[in-house]
Amino acid sequence: MSKIVRLGVIGLGVEGLSYIKFISEGMVPNMVIGALSDAVPDKQQTADDLGVPFFSDYKEMITSGTVDAVVTTVPHYLHPEMGIYALEHGVHALVEKPVGVYTKQAQRLLDVAAARPELQFGVFFNQRTNQLYKDLRDLMASGELGKLRHTSWIITNWWRPQGYYDSSAWRATWGGEGGGVLVNQAPHQLDLWQWICGVPKSVFAKVQYGFRRNIAVEDEVNALVSFADGATGTFITATHDLPGTDRLEILCDQGKIVVENSKDVTIWRLTKPEQQLSEEMSMEHVAKLFQGELDASTFMSVETKSYSSVWGQQHSEVMRNFAAAINGEENLLAPGADGIHGVRLANAIHLSSWTNKEVSIENFDDEAYLAGLNERIRAEGKYAERD
Amino acid sequence: MSKIVRLGVIGLGVEGLSYIKFISEGMVPNMVIGALSDAVPDKQQTADDLGVPFFSDYKEMITSGTVDAVVTTVPHYLHPEMGIYALEHGVHALVEKPVGVYTKQAQRLLDVAAARPELQFGVFFNQRTNQLYKDLRDLMASGELGKLRHTSWIITNWWRPQGYYDSSAWRATWGGEGGGVLVNQAPHQLDLWQWICGVPKSVFAKVQYGFRRNIAVEDEVNALVSFADGATGTFITATHDLPGTDRLEILCDQGKIVVENSKDVTIWRLTKPEQQLSEEMSMEHVAKLFQGELDASTFMSVETKSYSSVWGQQHSEVMRNFAAAINGEENLLAPGADGIHGVRLANAIHLSSWTNKEVSIENFDDEAYLAGLNERIRAEGKYAERD
Repeated sequence: MSKIVRLGVIGLGVEGLSYIKFISEGMVPNMVIGALSDAVPDKQQTADDLGVPFFSDYKEMITSGTVDAVVTTVPHYLHPEMGIYALEHGVHALVEKPVGVYTKQAQRLLDVAAARPELQFGVFFNQRTNQLYKDLRDLMASGELGKLRHTSWIITNWWRPQGYYDSSAWRATWGGEGGGVLVNQAPHQLDLWQWICGVPKSVFAKVQYGFRRNIAVEDEVNALVSFADGATGTFITATHDLPGTDRLEILCDQGKIVVENSKDVTIWRLTKPEQQLSEEMSMEHVAKLFQGELDASTFMSVETKSYSSVWGQQHSEVMRNFAAAINGEENLLAPGADGIHGVRLANAIHLSSWTNKEVSIENFDDEAYLAGLNERIRAEGKYAERD
Repeated sequence: MSKIVRLGVIGLGVEGLSYIKFISEGMVPNMVIGALSDAVPDKQQTADDLGVPFFSDYKEMITSGTVDAVVTTVPHYLHPEMGIYALEHGVHALVEKPVGVYTKQAQRLLDVAAARPELQFGVFFNQRTNQLYKDLRDLMASGELGKLRHTSWIITNWWRPQGYYDSSAWRATWGGEGGGVLVNQAPHQLDLWQWICGVPKSVFAKVQYGFRRNIAVEDEVNALVSFADGATGTFITATHDLPGTDRLEILCDQGKIVVENSKDVTIWRLTKPEQQLSEEMSMEHVAKLFQGELDASTFMSVETKSYSSVWGQQHSEVMRNFAAAINGEENLLAPGADGIHGVRLANAIHLSSWTNKEVSIENFDDEAYLAGLNERIRAEGKYAERD
């Protein structure tokens, strides 16, 4: 019979409290709250209300024997060290996205996790539980649409006014948050894009820092990536677009996908690979094409679908899957190791913008990125440098 | 009273014949056909049917006294030399797009035209007569939407099967056509984009040559440009997308424009500059925003418009405006000198892809591009190199 997993929540902010609520309301059948932790002692009341232990030091919670697993809803920089501490003490780790701010840090966590295969290490990519993206991932993986040619994602629908940035001192700083839209808002899409389309080999990017907000970090990103075999992609994101856009397009050898607002999907399927259609088309057909008399429906079908998602379902599903993986019943939907792809792409985008050169993702220079990050932390003068 | 302008058509292919038809049918009230020219003597019949002189040598037509102006519907490489010959012999020149294949060649034409201000020199950018783009150009120029932040155009809806490329020996060759989608299909959009959004300062591009077609030149382009003041843009075009996309997005400081299929326009207008809205928003409003309780209509209006265009109207309008300019009644909608912007951007896109570096458009290296072009013409071994 399945064991009920006792979860320890580290960080009782908006996110941590919502996970506690989902579990308390029974939305995660194979999980209970084992204990809570927050550096701010005032937050003990939440634990008292639930009748679970409270720890102001997360390390004490991990070694207390009250939890089988932890989730880290804390500022991004802290994810790896908390994940490492948990895994090194025999506790399963579900790390919030991103798994780290910089690849060197994320890799340390991945290395520790790789040495503990008996423990589950997941990343909180709740969008991977979104049926829309699961279906797209399956469709692309099935090979039905053939190889990728190009893809573009404009994802700018997370407007953040200045007051949002001013709400916490660490927010949108190099030393406290480690970046802007790439580490805070866009990690889900950086993950989904690579989960569905594959991991790019290189990137060239233009990044605007404090472009339309009074912040040190990036509020707008325009990246051009190269995948294997000549496929390309563009990724555009910003926090100051009013209104924003969320439009993903994927063009393949035998079909095309367009997703609007992470909700409405259109899939075109060709009866044959496009190049074969091209080769077989006679001059007569070409003439008809130019006269607008060629009936496309003879070689192309179109399907439209709309998806809806209920608040909390995705997050609850991540936790349920995580507990099921701990019980050996399922594979993780979002293994922690996958999390480094998004971190690396985000880091490579910055490094490209700093150097004004195309940057290799395949052979990413972790140290060059970290040096550039520390240069900015130093200039900011508010936080310690990283290693 | 307006003079009726006698037009000489050089090149009696599909395009030339359609212009002759528009004029013969009275769609261009201030223009008549003066004479026709084609290197293929068989084509004389068209002239005989119209009762106008025919010249197998375009130079003879230009000096014959039978025409006031010429239009050049011939392969791209020939546009500059024909334009130059006309202008040097006192004949107005309406040059087909692109005004040249490479900037050095186009510049020669511009220099000759600049020395003859008494003559009209136009480029056949018929899309500039499209009310949709005229309205967008006016809207952007008015300043109502504020400064540009970012723009992207995916324009891939010109599917060309292999048979199209195989239909003429010069097509899709470096020496005969000088490029693929950038010189043949996309010049209108390369012009409109810059006409509406401004001329970029630099570009980084990934270009696929013979990616999904058996051709030497480019069938897919993915370009990332930088405008002044941190604004950016992406331009994606290909001739093998099935189905294609035509989607233009322009995000500005006080509004946004989305155009679908060069037909349906949505314009969002903010009541104040976006940054001001951002600054004025209290923490209370920010909280409401995150709870989905902020009513956007209080600071944003939306307008949707659909445009239609009738085949032939745009081309007739270009010729009417050109004749009116000759008569001193109007300014040219598409002055020939504007044509070099599209040529330069196309050349810079190639040069960036060849060097894998960002390329300056402001200080474009004409000789470097020409050297790269000649290298490819040499490797192809079918046509003479250019100077």
